Formats: sequence, C-alpha cells, structure tokens
Amino acid sequence: MKRKVFYVSDRTGITAETLGHSLLTQFEGIEFERESLRFIDSIDKAHAAAESINEAAAQTGVKPIVFSTLIEAPVRDVVAASQCVYFDLFDVFIDPLEQELGVMSSHTAGRTHGMGSANGYTTRIDAVNFALQHDDGSTMRDYARADLILLGVSRSGKTPTCLYMALQYGIFAANYPLTEDDMNELRLPERLKPYHAKLFGLTIKPERLQRIRSERRPNSRYASLHQCQFEVRQVEAMYRTHGIPILDSTTMSVEEIAATILDVLNREGRVAPQSG
Amino acid sequence: MKRKVFYVSDRTGITAETLGHSLLTQFEGIEFERESLRFIDSIDKAHAAAESINEAAAQTGVKPIVFSTLIEAPVRDVVAASQCVYFDLFDVFIDPLEQELGVMSSHTAGRTHGMGSANGYTTRIDAVNFALQHDDGSTMRDYARADLILLGVSRSGKTPTCLYMALQYGIFAANYPLTEDDMNELRLPERLKPYHAKLFGLTIKPERLQRIRSERRPNSRYASLHQCQFEVRQVEAMYRTHGIPILDSTTMSVEEIAATILDVLNREGRVAPQSG
Repeated sequence: MKRKVFYVSDRTGITAETLGHSLLTQFEGIEFERESLRFIDSIDKAHAAAESINEAAAQTGVKPIVFSTLIEAPVRDVVAASQCVYFDLFDVFIDPLEQELGVMSSHTAGRTHGMGSANGYTTRIDAVNFALQHDDGSTMRDYARADLILLGVSRSGKTPTCLYMALQYGIFAANYPLTEDDMNELRLPERLKPYHAKLFGLTIKPERLQRIRSERRPNSRYASLHQCQFEVRQVEAMYRTHGIPILDSTTMSVEEIAATILDVLNREGRVAPQSG
Repeated sequence: MKRKVFYVSDRTGITAETLGHSLLTQFEGIEFERESLRFIDSIDKAHAAAESINEAAAQTGVKPIVFSTLIEAPVRDVVAASQCVYFDLFDVFIDPLEQELGVMSSHTAGRTHGMGSANGYTTRIDAVNFALQHDDGSTMRDYARADLILLGVSRSGKTPTCLYMALQYGIFAANYPLTEDDMNELRLPERLKPYHAKLFGLTIKPERLQRIRSERRPNSRYASLHQCQFEVRQVEAMYRTHGIPILDSTTMSVEEIAATILDVLNREGRVAPQSG
C-alpha cells in the first residue's frame, strides 16, 4: 500500500510541494500517494482538510504524512490535530530567523507566489512574451534585449528551457534553430554574430533525439538515426569552431539546464543573481 | 544595508530558493540581497562557496543567512563552517521522517528537479508543446485531449497561465481568444460547445487591462478604457449566460490562477491530484 502524503497550504501549495517532494526523493524505496490541499485559509476549510486526512488514515490504517506551510495558528492547530504525522515547514525556522533578524515575523498567510512579491512578476510575464516572440527564430528583432540566445537542433529542448527560464527567473531567452545549410558549412549565421556572447549551444545524444523525433514524425528522414547523428555532429563541431558553450540536454531536465545556464550568466556578471 | 542571503544547493537550488524565499516574505521590513550558489557537489566547490560567504560577511559586517539543501556531510560541513547563520532545510526533517517511515534515507545529492523523478517529466514537456500548439485558438484540433480550455479577452493572462500549468503540473491547457462577434452576441463559439466542462473564463478589471494593453499598443482603440470595459463586461456576461466558472486575474499571479484551477479540477476528479 502506498503511503499517503498531504501538502497543506494557505495559498498555492508550491512551497510545501517543493520541499516535501525534495525530502521524499530521499526515500526511494517507498511509494507515496500525494495530494495537495490548497487555499486552506479558514477554520472551516481546516476542518474539511482534517477530515480528508482522517479519512485517508482510516482507509490506509496508517497516519498520513502532512507537510504544511500553514501560518495562522488557529487554522494550523485544526489540521495538526488530525490523524497525521505533521511536519511544519515554517515553524522550526521562523523562531531562529526572528532572533537572528531581531524582528518579529508577520505571521500572516503567505503571498509567496503572489504578484506583489519581490519576484519581479511583471518582468517574468514580459519574459514569457519575449520567449514566445523569439521562439524558433521567428523574429530576431529584439535580440539586443535578450539575456541569452539558445542554439540547437530541432527537439533538443530549446523552447521549454526558454519558457521555464522566463517563468521561473524572468530571464529573457530567445532561441534559434540552425538550418541544414548552417550545419553543412559549420556556419554561425551572420545575424547571430553580433550576439556571440549571448549564445549557448544545446546538444543531445543522437539516440535520444531519434526517440523524441520518432514520437512526432515516425519513420521520417527527420527522425532517422542517421539524420540525428549528422545534425548533432555538425552542431557540436560548429559550437566548438565558434567557441560557444555547450550543454548536453540528454539527461537534464529544463530545470537543470536553466540552473546551469543561470550559473554561467551569474558568474560572468551578465545578469543579476536570480533567486527564483 | 541589505542583509545578504545565500541559497546553497548541490543541484538546481530550486528547493532552497522556494522555502527560503517563503520564509523571508514573513519579514517584510527587511531588505535582502539574495544569491544562489548552485551545483555545490564537491569539497572544492564547497570551499569556493564558503569563501563567497566569508567575503560577504567581511563586506557587510554581518553574518549572511544561508539556506541550504546540501545533503552530503563532508560538503555540507565545509559550507556550514563559514561565517554564516546556517539553516539546514533538510536536516531537521530527515531524522523524524526516517523514524516514521522505518527506513534510512539515501543521503545522496538531490535529483529533485531532474528528469528521473516522479514528476512525469515527459508529460510536462508534452504539455508545453500542447499549450504552444493550442495557444490563442491557433488550432482546436486536439481539444479532446485538453484538461482545460481557458477563455478570456486579449492580455488577460491566458498564455502564461497555460504554459505555467504545463511546466509545473503537466496539465494540458489550451486557450481560446473570444472574438468581437462572440462578445457582441454573448455567444459561445460552436466549436467550444462540445468541451463545455473544460472551460474556465478569465476576467480582469478594465483599468488593469488598459494599463497592460497600453504598454503594448499605446493610444490604440485596443488599449482604450472604453474598449476594455466593453470587452470585460461582455465576456463576463457570456460566462454567466453559459455557466462557465469565472476567475478574476487582476491581482492573481499565474501561480495562483493555476493553483485555483487545479483545485477545481482535483475536487471534481477531472485530473489526478498533482503534487508539482
């Protein structure tokens, strides 16, 4: 039987999900069934949440694990009193932080993932629009404004990476698909040359590329191993010829690719440190 | 002087940033300068991180606050020994979790945001491609596959919300822009009718819509308050006429809109609970 896990939050649940999920990845042998209880911001909703937890406890015969970022004490107390193992993700840190900072915390329900936070919400939305406008070389109009321009063969992960960097970090990321002519001649397109310092080259193992492309266009030349091998070999040679930093996306998630690029940009002082 | 904060992690830093940021929002009066130190996965990198922290301590005369998800003890010990106030985001929870689950944790550097996790990585990337293909009514081909279809006037937040839901939760979200004819006649487009149960209607205060549109096309009819008022009034009437759930995006972030929609979909059993 899977162990039931609840993420309980007074707002979006993102913080509870993120830390709870990280902790659970440390226990690979156990299967978990996760459920988020979001917007638990009243006593009534707290009672309903407690009821869901108690039901799961009765059904499985084991106390569910609860990861909670609930802040307001009356709401929190109701949930914590249910049949569960309660992990309060804030409580253990708030007291020592108050002592260290010399001020009391506001103890108000979270707006961590709201618009008003320091996240630069407008920048993030502008960055999403920028990524969409500058996807797949559709326009190069505003490359001067780009924090980075991602190169790569079709289906190497350029677009999702750009969108993730925009949404999570407010980074202005364009991407450019190399043509077969570019690849044949190991040529860096003329219009990219002024932006050399912004270029990052994605690569990917041909076998993985073949699998991804085959799902889209089975049995096509585009998806053939031969074509994938050719394209990957050529773009890698092109990156090396022109001194473009290379990232292998074969076993990396968009989160990992984004964090890796951001790390380079931060270290070179090309964008201000982003804290997500 | 701003208080310096470091997020230190052996991988992407996303978990440390998310919880650290949530905790700091509880201290509104204080200004923080945040920096992420990612991929700290060796003793050498740990020493370099400790050096950055010590430099900041010397510069500001105050110990920086460190939020860490470092797991491997030798690496962690080097960073924790620097001139800082060290908050270990894992340590306090791992022991009680081990006791509760009756197994030892793997104590290996995190792959929380890697491809191999239970997040359904491929689903998320497929969902991003679906959102892009079904953005702004560009095609309605695969509406049968959509988990939801978002309606709304231009610039009410449809596209970033769909992309966020795809990247974060693997939700298949399409969006459809209502035309002026639809709005004039309070008409639900014929081709949306078979998918009535999947529809969510975004709305937004006309004044906010005017500001957003004015940044794009200043002094246009499109951005005029009169036009914004007309469109918002009509789509809201249309949603009500056809019994479509309404969400006001005026003061909500994409994270909050996404969590709100997901909450409805979960409660109605229309998608499996997502834990992010």
